[in-house]
Amino acid sequence: MKKVVLGFSGGLDTTFCVKHLGEDKGYEVHSVIVNTGGFSEEELKKIEAHAYKLGVKTHTTVDAVKGYYDKMIKYLVFGNVLKNNTYPLSVSAERLVQALHIAEHAKVLKADAVAHGSTGAGNDQVRFDMVFNIVLPGIEIITPIRDLKLSREAEIEYLKGKGVEMNFEKAAYSINKGLWGTSVGGRETLSSKGLLPEEAWPTQVTKKGAEEVKLHFEKGELTAVNDKTFAHSAEAIQYLQTIAGAYGVGRDIHVGDTIIGIKGRVGFEAAAPMVIIKAHHALEKHVLTKWQLSWKDNIANFYGNWMHEGQIMDPVMRDIEAFLQSSQANVTGDVFVQLQPYYFQVIGIESKYDLMNSKFGKYGEMNNGWTGEDVRGFTKIFGNQTAMFHMVKESNEQ
Amino acid sequence: MKKVVLGFSGGLDTTFCVKHLGEDKGYEVHSVIVNTGGFSEEELKKIEAHAYKLGVKTHTTVDAVKGYYDKMIKYLVFGNVLKNNTYPLSVSAERLVQALHIAEHAKVLKADAVAHGSTGAGNDQVRFDMVFNIVLPGIEIITPIRDLKLSREAEIEYLKGKGVEMNFEKAAYSINKGLWGTSVGGRETLSSKGLLPEEAWPTQVTKKGAEEVKLHFEKGELTAVNDKTFAHSAEAIQYLQTIAGAYGVGRDIHVGDTIIGIKGRVGFEAAAPMVIIKAHHALEKHVLTKWQLSWKDNIANFYGNWMHEGQIMDPVMRDIEAFLQSSQANVTGDVFVQLQPYYFQVIGIESKYDLMNSKFGKYGEMNNGWTGEDVRGFTKIFGNQTAMFHMVKESNEQ
Amino acid sequence: MKKVVLGFSGGLDTTFCVKHLGEDKGYEVHSVIVNTGGFSEEELKKIEAHAYKLGVKTHTTVDAVKGYYDKMIKYLVFGNVLKNNTYPLSVSAERLVQALHIAEHAKVLKADAVAHGSTGAGNDQVRFDMVFNIVLPGIEIITPIRDLKLSREAEIEYLKGKGVEMNFEKAAYSINKGLWGTSVGGRETLSSKGLLPEEAWPTQVTKKGAEEVKLHFEKGELTAVNDKTFAHSAEAIQYLQTIAGAYGVGRDIHVGDTIIGIKGRVGFEAAAPMVIIKAHHALEKHVLTKWQLSWKDNIANFYGNWMHEGQIMDPVMRDIEAFLQSSQANVTGDVFVQLQPYYFQVIGIESKYDLMNSKFGKYGEMNNGWTGEDVRGFTKIFGNQTAMFHMVKESNEQ
Amino acid sequence: MKKVVLGFSGGLDTTFCVKHLGEDKGYEVHSVIVNTGGFSEEELKKIEAHAYKLGVKTHTTVDAVKGYYDKMIKYLVFGNVLKNNTYPLSVSAERLVQALHIAEHAKVLKADAVAHGSTGAGNDQVRFDMVFNIVLPGIEIITPIRDLKLSREAEIEYLKGKGVEMNFEKAAYSINKGLWGTSVGGRETLSSKGLLPEEAWPTQVTKKGAEEVKLHFEKGELTAVNDKTFAHSAEAIQYLQTIAGAYGVGRDIHVGDTIIGIKGRVGFEAAAPMVIIKAHHALEKHVLTKWQLSWKDNIANFYGNWMHEGQIMDPVMRDIEAFLQSSQANVTGDVFVQLQPYYFQVIGIESKYDLMNSKFGKYGEMNNGWTGEDVRGFTKIFGNQTAMFHMVKESNEQ
Repeated sequence: MKKVVLGFSGGLDTTFCVKHLGEDKGYEVHSVIVNTGGFSEEELKKIEAHAYKLGVKTHTTVDAVKGYYDKMIKYLVFGNVLKNNTYPLSVSAERLVQALHIAEHAKVLKADAVAHGSTGAGNDQVRFDMVFNIVLPGIEIITPIRDLKLSREAEIEYLKGKGVEMNFEKAAYSINKGLWGTSVGGRETLSSKGLLPEEAWPTQVTKKGAEEVKLHFEKGELTAVNDKTFAHSAEAIQYLQTIAGAYGVGRDIHVGDTIIGIKGRVGFEAAAPMVIIKAHHALEKHVLTKWQLSWKDNIANFYGNWMHEGQIMDPVMRDIEAFLQSSQANVTGDVFVQLQPYYFQVIGIESKYDLMNSKFGKYGEMNNGWTGEDVRGFTKIFGNQTAMFHMVKESNEQ
Repeated sequence: MKKVVLGFSGGLDTTFCVKHLGEDKGYEVHSVIVNTGGFSEEELKKIEAHAYKLGVKTHTTVDAVKGYYDKMIKYLVFGNVLKNNTYPLSVSAERLVQALHIAEHAKVLKADAVAHGSTGAGNDQVRFDMVFNIVLPGIEIITPIRDLKLSREAEIEYLKGKGVEMNFEKAAYSINKGLWGTSVGGRETLSSKGLLPEEAWPTQVTKKGAEEVKLHFEKGELTAVNDKTFAHSAEAIQYLQTIAGAYGVGRDIHVGDTIIGIKGRVGFEAAAPMVIIKAHHALEKHVLTKWQLSWKDNIANFYGNWMHEGQIMDPVMRDIEAFLQSSQANVTGDVFVQLQPYYFQVIGIESKYDLMNSKFGKYGEMNNGWTGEDVRGFTKIFGNQTAMFHMVKESNEQ
Repeated sequence: MKKVVLGFSGGLDTTFCVKHLGEDKGYEVHSVIVNTGGFSEEELKKIEAHAYKLGVKTHTTVDAVKGYYDKMIKYLVFGNVLKNNTYPLSVSAERLVQALHIAEHAKVLKADAVAHGSTGAGNDQVRFDMVFNIVLPGIEIITPIRDLKLSREAEIEYLKGKGVEMNFEKAAYSINKGLWGTSVGGRETLSSKGLLPEEAWPTQVTKKGAEEVKLHFEKGELTAVNDKTFAHSAEAIQYLQTIAGAYGVGRDIHVGDTIIGIKGRVGFEAAAPMVIIKAHHALEKHVLTKWQLSWKDNIANFYGNWMHEGQIMDPVMRDIEAFLQSSQANVTGDVFVQLQPYYFQVIGIESKYDLMNSKFGKYGEMNNGWTGEDVRGFTKIFGNQTAMFHMVKESNEQ
Repeated sequence: MKKVVLGFSGGLDTTFCVKHLGEDKGYEVHSVIVNTGGFSEEELKKIEAHAYKLGVKTHTTVDAVKGYYDKMIKYLVFGNVLKNNTYPLSVSAERLVQALHIAEHAKVLKADAVAHGSTGAGNDQVRFDMVFNIVLPGIEIITPIRDLKLSREAEIEYLKGKGVEMNFEKAAYSINKGLWGTSVGGRETLSSKGLLPEEAWPTQVTKKGAEEVKLHFEKGELTAVNDKTFAHSAEAIQYLQTIAGAYGVGRDIHVGDTIIGIKGRVGFEAAAPMVIIKAHHALEKHVLTKWQLSWKDNIANFYGNWMHEGQIMDPVMRDIEAFLQSSQANVTGDVFVQLQPYYFQVIGIESKYDLMNSKFGKYGEMNNGWTGEDVRGFTKIFGNQTAMFHMVKESNEQ
């Protein structure tokens, strides 16, 4: 009997896949769920029970939260990555971690095939296929949802016919939750206009007034929040999420290019990610040089886009990570952020590496390091070539 | 008698310059004020009267608002330029326009020298020197404030000694206002931490609740607000400013690299600029291709930084403007924005060039244009090289 | 009867396509050959006769040489485009022009299908498919060679069975000739090592000694060679080719990434293109500013790669062309080149826009425009931030 | 008595400096010569004797060859750095190493001042000033040649008056030699046109015919030449120089932007550097992915320019070095190069990391890894957005 490893979330599509693969196709089905921070212990247990009830041979739960941070989120923070200047790549990064763990599991089980429940209309199919093609070259990739193009109703009918019991109601909004944010899709995001209604957001606004939080970064990584330190940054992120989420900050709508070329629009709430990225960037503005900031922007933009497109295994990503890691040597200090319902502000930073408030030079004040004469000379030379360009140009126009 | 053309704002420093240049140095002083949108008719008249009272030979007022938009702001909008992802370059661009007009005036008057009142500690000295060196090669540039390094008190004493009457009180915050935003410097911005107090902001928050505005762009330029059309985009900006300013949106603190290498921190309020840039960018996300968005970001970032550093006359700026102009061919449509006290959100867009809501393909829905099989093939080829890389790598590791 | 428009070169593969499409598939076959500079009048006539003998309904010859220059080569010159710093994109650009003309022809004929003879192993299939998908959305694209995967022998047997008479001998090297160079593939280029033997090069070395040529550029375009002026730059290129080709210059082997992810290696001879690009670049080094040179490199590199990958119709290409066109305003002057067997050298340039030999400043000589003191001040400010960085760093290490 | 550390080459200018600093200014002069590969043991001894005869308190010879390679040349190789696609930065990099060693020496000696003999018209003054300002903040920098602006004749007269004996004849060409190449300036390079005459080149062409050399790279570094291995790459470079130099390869003229904004032109011979860079790049084309090659180009270009401008101590340079180092993981293998008088060709490569001649896919041949159908699907999706763009555009034009 041929073995297939299936990425399993317990939802309608992957439930269908278990039955289809096991009973129609005759595979021995091994389901895997990779938790990147979106599931509680209880939810994971229910999903496991559901899987076994559907008849999987084995079900495996992978706790990927810390590895997810170490391999991807860390660099997204170092690079202040916001796709199209908006979206922290919440789902993009997560899918790749899931695909990598599923592929590793298939390797261990010496599976004959690997399956995922993506449709043929979005980004996720590319991410799963991509990682499977690379980690498991030549393996059969089965994608029943994409290939059969069944309607939701047809799937339900099929499952009812198989005696499957589960909640078949469709939620008004499709939600995907993980350590680095939660995406929210629904009626409003299917067109080019419209905000999500208040009730669509999974995290409701429960706090009022203003609250100041202090984020401590060590070499670019969040290690403490309000002086509470954490053994691993993933925990610090989760802790900050509980504080900031209740203000409804970090909500937005992302419009962007899918890997398959069409434009997509999706809501997301990502309180901790947005606060961390803005705070981290503020700290960097104080401790990095102009060209570090400039090159980081340039290279991290590509890093984010290329990750979004599923290309995490291209070795250029390792080279960029080496750059980003090197750039964080001095990104150590505290950042103060003020949270308020729906928005937040960076108040400022304190760092021993601060290039602004050093004793060596201060904006707006004259300084022992150089003179006005130096700046006059500087400007003459700095504009020398453009001055010559215009002199040459004018001499030709006469 | 040698003629000097002096950039004149009517403040303490340039008032000192008139007296110093005219009476200590023996120049015939011709003062110029270039209005980039920050002065009312009444203020300009008072400044003119003040200049003549100080003894200038001529005083000239240049209305540069539209030219400022045409030469610079337009491209800052096309490029969605926010320095360090924050600051719309309000002052940077303005200074260059002022310098250019002063230089042109000096040419017309066949002046022997040109003067500005910048100190030796900031960006403006570089911008004025730079433009003067290029437009007026070889001319004498006189910078009394930079060279004499007088204290505020010494200047006041000097002027009182000359019988000058004006308001010598120092405002708690130094304000610079123009079409593209208002900068606010004060005690809090001199250190790395601290928000400006509510009363420091020139535009106070007077509106409550939420208000929706509709911005219409034609080939990237704002031409109408709430269906009110304007003959020139500068007017549309000013109109939007009256609507959005009262919500206190577009306030922030910018930390960045000065041209002379030190870090600087400055508050700014720029309601219309921030709303326009975010709205314009949202529209672009719908109508431009992935690589247009990517290259625009890259090239416009440089454009903004290079302008900030005073290099507006480098011919590379014309080349970039040609790129940006070309990119706006389809950036036409309406953008809907919701204003609330202290923050705003883009609700969505409507455009006949929208690549998202076209009939040709829709995110999350299967489509006649291609099949799941196509995407499967796409992904295989898209990841081909990385797959080979890993196969080669593994074959070497065995 | 359904109409198919077929890109036709008269070679084995496209000869097979005519018969297969017409007789096995029952299409009315309309063949087109697009001459991008590689065919003589006589060759084109022979190909036409061959087509009609094979039974095509119509055969059309498109003279695309000038259009090829105007749409593509011009910008490759402006951008000094050499893929991987080696290859002038001879074949890449040509295929796109061919695809565009074939697609236009199919539009005019209201064809039901379009066909090309590419295999499934190279770049050309992508270029043809890409352009057809865009210009003729939804049209059937027929690719018999790719789909049937016949061996050369099988094709010959098939054609002999159909009574086709033509030269069935396989040339030792496959040659593709056009205005912008000739590619040469053979045994040696199939592995990672090995030069092409002398006899493999289509243009043999017939000149000895050294010869100086003068190239005149007007706004970046070659308009005269040795004072002989041409109405169209394509003619100037062809004229230069007759002079430089006989020296065997511009021969090299290109190793690069195909669109489908594998590495490819191909020989090419491109005497005129290489001389023109190096001469044009030399002129630019004298007349453009530092940042014009830098941005041109950056953006033209992408332009070349994206064209190579068939993406000529992405609107970002128009934006880049606008940039490149703008950058050529002063690229006017003479460039002197010395040709010798197998290599050439740029001797120098003469231009009224030369920023080097201007009267305003000269390398290695002191100058009235600035002083050593100015440079001292310049350097202090230019290194200011890095100096502060190290002071801050050291103060933390103590 | 105040101590000054002087960069000393033994030439006219620095000889003048010793006397001027010691006898006119009353400093205790400590001379230093930093050998970056351009001086023989014998020459260094003569220079030392000359220094002591002039009256220096101490003279120090620093052997910087290996450190020069480790700190700079290594990364120039990794990045295939050729300024303006021509010049291996022979002198630019060298000056910085010299400045760093001189500054370290001044630190050790607790010197009160540091001096260099650069004029006010070139790049070197900026490089020395820059490094001294950063490593020795606040130290007095004395530049007699730049400040006094003496003519050559005046210097000679001065030295003769002081009883100095040395060769006062001016060489027809000024030569600067080091591990990474030799620059040659003279009459021809002072204008925009003209090649250097054969006799101007320090290394004369003494070999004829063709010779094949094999270069072995380990993680991007040259470790063996023709199977002769070296303990340090600097030695391998010097060995290759003896082989390739005699063919006169690697000669060229560089036209570029000086740091002070004017254009400069200089001849150089750099046989080993040019052969190494081209060979290294050829190997990389076989073993790196497309985006590694692309980003390396982009980032290394900046690295070279920023080093050229003296900014080696900007921490962004460390970040880029981390990127470059990471990118070299698989750059291991042999490269075969054919040398001939005045030019050379890369014959090919052999590497276990070669992505081309792997068993996993071969250009021009069909392949088990994917099908023509896959490429068809790929192309459809790859061109999807541009196709939609044109459909939307056309629908608006109707």
